[in-house]
Amino acid sequence: MSNESLLENLSHGNKRIVSRVISLIENDNQKSEELISQIFSKTGNAYRIGITGPPGAGKSTITNQLTKLYASQNKTVGIVAIDPTSPFTGGALLGDRVRMTEIGMNDGVFIRSMASRGSLGGLSRKAVDAGDVLDAAGYDYVIYETVGVGQSELDIVEAADTTVVTLVPESGDSIQALKAGLMEIGDIFALNKSDRPGAETAISSLKSMLQLKFHTENDWIPEVLQTIASENKGIETIAEMIDKHRMFLTETNELSLNRLKQTKKRIEDIVLEKVKLTIKSKEFNYGFKDLDTLPDQISSPVQIANYIFKNLTNNKEVDVGN
Amino acid sequence: MSNESLLENLSHGNKRIVSRVISLIENDNQKSEELISQIFSKTGNAYRIGITGPPGAGKSTITNQLTKLYASQNKTVGIVAIDPTSPFTGGALLGDRVRMTEIGMNDGVFIRSMASRGSLGGLSRKAVDAGDVLDAAGYDYVIYETVGVGQSELDIVEAADTTVVTLVPESGDSIQALKAGLMEIGDIFALNKSDRPGAETAISSLKSMLQLKFHTENDWIPEVLQTIASENKGIETIAEMIDKHRMFLTETNELSLNRLKQTKKRIEDIVLEKVKLTIKSKEFNYGFKDLDTLPDQISSPVQIANYIFKNLTNNKEVDVGN
Repeated sequence: MSNESLLENLSHGNKRIVSRVISLIENDNQKSEELISQIFSKTGNAYRIGITGPPGAGKSTITNQLTKLYASQNKTVGIVAIDPTSPFTGGALLGDRVRMTEIGMNDGVFIRSMASRGSLGGLSRKAVDAGDVLDAAGYDYVIYETVGVGQSELDIVEAADTTVVTLVPESGDSIQALKAGLMEIGDIFALNKSDRPGAETAISSLKSMLQLKFHTENDWIPEVLQTIASENKGIETIAEMIDKHRMFLTETNELSLNRLKQTKKRIEDIVLEKVKLTIKSKEFNYGFKDLDTLPDQISSPVQIANYIFKNLTNNKEVDVGN
Repeated sequence: MSNESLLENLSHGNKRIVSRVISLIENDNQKSEELISQIFSKTGNAYRIGITGPPGAGKSTITNQLTKLYASQNKTVGIVAIDPTSPFTGGALLGDRVRMTEIGMNDGVFIRSMASRGSLGGLSRKAVDAGDVLDAAGYDYVIYETVGVGQSELDIVEAADTTVVTLVPESGDSIQALKAGLMEIGDIFALNKSDRPGAETAISSLKSMLQLKFHTENDWIPEVLQTIASENKGIETIAEMIDKHRMFLTETNELSLNRLKQTKKRIEDIVLEKVKLTIKSKEFNYGFKDLDTLPDQISSPVQIANYIFKNLTNNKEVDVGN
């Protein structure tokens, strides 16, 4: 099928095509680049939600319940779920996937799992591209569900309009420092399994941590919500808070500013990826494979890097802006 | 003082000069690049140890005791400690720093703290450069002590010859997945505070996780040790295990292979940093500041990235190696 007819038929009513387009864009080639470009021009209508947190905090359950709620409101939902397939975590989440597959039977719900293993730098780009496909296909909501460990995963939720960070009371003590990265990206915090011991302490420690962050009066102050996702408790409150945040972003024009920032970040990532591939390629004479042939007087990493950079840019005079 | 006289006087006997050289290389300028290059040619003699783990696992205490042990064996030790200065973690580690400053009074011990805040990409490069200075100054051991959260921190311990991952029994449950990144980089695991409840369970779960990882018969099998660093228990065993790992690396030639790999990674990082600065600089006409002036037909991130990449490389034909 040509790109054109794929795009014409790309709609949340046709999951087979949605799935096929995502598979195509997962490849790195000329055709996929063209397709991604064509898709990008059709994006901007879906609202993007990132759901992240440590393993076992109930991300999948919250995604599941939130999706059910949206479906009951006749909204369509496209989900991009990043599977942690490290040898250490591989099996653990199988149950969640099964549960998620059930909501996937709903006509207005599409789920795409992506493996986090072995793709490192490319993962976030591809997950965000997959979100674009779902956006272009007309889904009302795009949900990125990803474990909050590693830069790549954080990059993905940064492509969301609203990020929900899920935590559990057990995260307790070490929460404070360990999840600093998560603290900084959350717009909404859901303390899940909040019927467990330690919930009150966790809530107040979360709140005091969030207060440590400097907020101007025009900032969005992240809310801390209590949920028991497995009993469907607190999910409506999350949905309401997402709406509230969306309204805030729209009114302050931050929605478009954030999206522009995200686009710039995506551009930068693609350029850097190309540079990485280039300096490692055989065709690039001063790439790593030929380190041995570099002139003798060049010996330190910084000198070699300068040499490679000059060669890459064809000795063009560029001010690197120190 | 000229670079030449700085280098001449760079020795673990002269902490003032060591400190000054590290401060100089922390700046990004022509002089610091030259200095780094000159220093690099004098490196390769120190043995580099990375000590990492979640906050509160006792990294500083282990670093402290291990350093005392080495000092008692008349070995000199240079420490590069990465301070987590996120608003959420800032104050917590002050006690550790004070304790570490005490060992710093020892003639053969040098401690340099580096802030992790606000330097992101550049941090790992500078920490590794600081390690080079200590190596060139003749310290027998260079220890990188860093919290195991974030890519930047992991990059630093990857510059070590032997990485010790410290954990505590409380890490318990969520250890399994959450620290997958740490699991993969550890050569030695120290379960610290191993007199606390749950130690036995933690040890066996750690061991079974490590067994999940595929090992060929020629691989180094990471060892799990028990320590109570605050009571100086288990520190000698860590030192012995570091020696054993060092011997293994030397015999299998992995020591030099790893170091070559690290050097290549450093080169790549510097090139990418230069590219980032370039595409963001005013002088580079198709940088982000001029996104608005791009031709109309260019609209998607991947197209803009291609455009920027072509401009960067002066339209030079390079095969990006797909």
